[in-house]
Amino acid sequence: MNRPYQFAAEESGHYNCQMNGGNWKTISSERHFADRNVQVVTDRVQTPARPDPRVWTIVHRKPAVVIAPMTRDGKIILIRQERIPIRQAIWEMPSGQIDDHNADGEKIKEVASRELREESGYELAQDGRLISLGHYFSSPGFTDERGHLFLASPVQPCEEGPDREEGESILDCRQFSVEEIRRMIADNEIRDANTLSICATLAARGLLSLTPRP
Amino acid sequence: MNRPYQFAAEESGHYNCQMNGGNWKTISSERHFADRNVQVVTDRVQTPARPDPRVWTIVHRKPAVVIAPMTRDGKIILIRQERIPIRQAIWEMPSGQIDDHNADGEKIKEVASRELREESGYELAQDGRLISLGHYFSSPGFTDERGHLFLASPVQPCEEGPDREEGESILDCRQFSVEEIRRMIADNEIRDANTLSICATLAARGLLSLTPRP
Repeated sequence: MNRPYQFAAEESGHYNCQMNGGNWKTISSERHFADRNVQVVTDRVQTPARPDPRVWTIVHRKPAVVIAPMTRDGKIILIRQERIPIRQAIWEMPSGQIDDHNADGEKIKEVASRELREESGYELAQDGRLISLGHYFSSPGFTDERGHLFLASPVQPCEEGPDREEGESILDCRQFSVEEIRRMIADNEIRDANTLSICATLAARGLLSLTPRP
Repeated sequence: MNRPYQFAAEESGHYNCQMNGGNWKTISSERHFADRNVQVVTDRVQTPARPDPRVWTIVHRKPAVVIAPMTRDGKIILIRQERIPIRQAIWEMPSGQIDDHNADGEKIKEVASRELREESGYELAQDGRLISLGHYFSSPGFTDERGHLFLASPVQPCEEGPDREEGESILDCRQFSVEEIRRMIADNEIRDANTLSICATLAARGLLSLTPRP
């Protein structure tokens, strides 16, 4: 239960496909539904830890980008968006799906820059950088959806403003201080995985403080 | 773009169903697939902000509980679990689905206590408390899945150990210091929404520090 932690790093995901002397093996896959946005399958899968195949329903989703836009004076830009599946409008970080299945690191960064501009009306300043913070899984018990996390800093308003596509449901866009972000997380007003996950990552890297003021 | 922040709280989710003079209205709903775990529908929905109906594919999921178990000396318990949709084993907080559609606050807490015990083999100490931290949405662009977040503190090992169901794929369970958790988030080893979202919430409430040591 409490073995030394130094072994954890070796097992922490980088070697997953060959851990425990076994491999992940898809024995069969049956498709139930597919449209532009979701694909539902039931797979029979052999896992590294268990030789007997397991049957699991999986919703495939395109990967996404999530961008934390930070201004030169340390403010964070959030958008307010109508989200139909939850019948609510929420404050969240700009994000978007990656349509190209073969997108490499550079291509993913291009998508992140475009989504930042389209959704928030902000873009990187001339000395700005798009910093990759890794990726996260939104709900690995049922979907393979992953979000690639980026810090965009510093950002400035685009001259031409946001360029929102037909499908977007963005109602508002504002700057928030880091203390406002912290307060909104503590009060459960920020409550989507994209925003919470990128904030946890930024905090753990020392790029944003979630610690309440004394 | 930068209107005074004091208006934000009024619009921050509590009044969503009547904001902007409109309501959320489901005009039609077509079901494509359903099993025990996912239900896929295409809804035509009128949103508060737009009078013209929008068509959206939604994956319905049961709500879940996510538990951050903290020992008396401030260690966090994580489990290592094989997650078939992503073909990986990851370190994460104990969690589980709420089967009862009508579960109220007390019932949800019971599920959280049970999942804590079954998945980690820990339980609340006699002076322990299960503290509700609100809920979050795992991917509100396509699913209504929500996770109810709890801090369980202090916890202690159950005498009988973990009681894992047939379906569970838990490989390991260990205590981690808060600094180890922070390092694993910074290094992208912790990378699921449940764990990242509950860590952001704990940090914003001053219950766990994600700030790197100087």
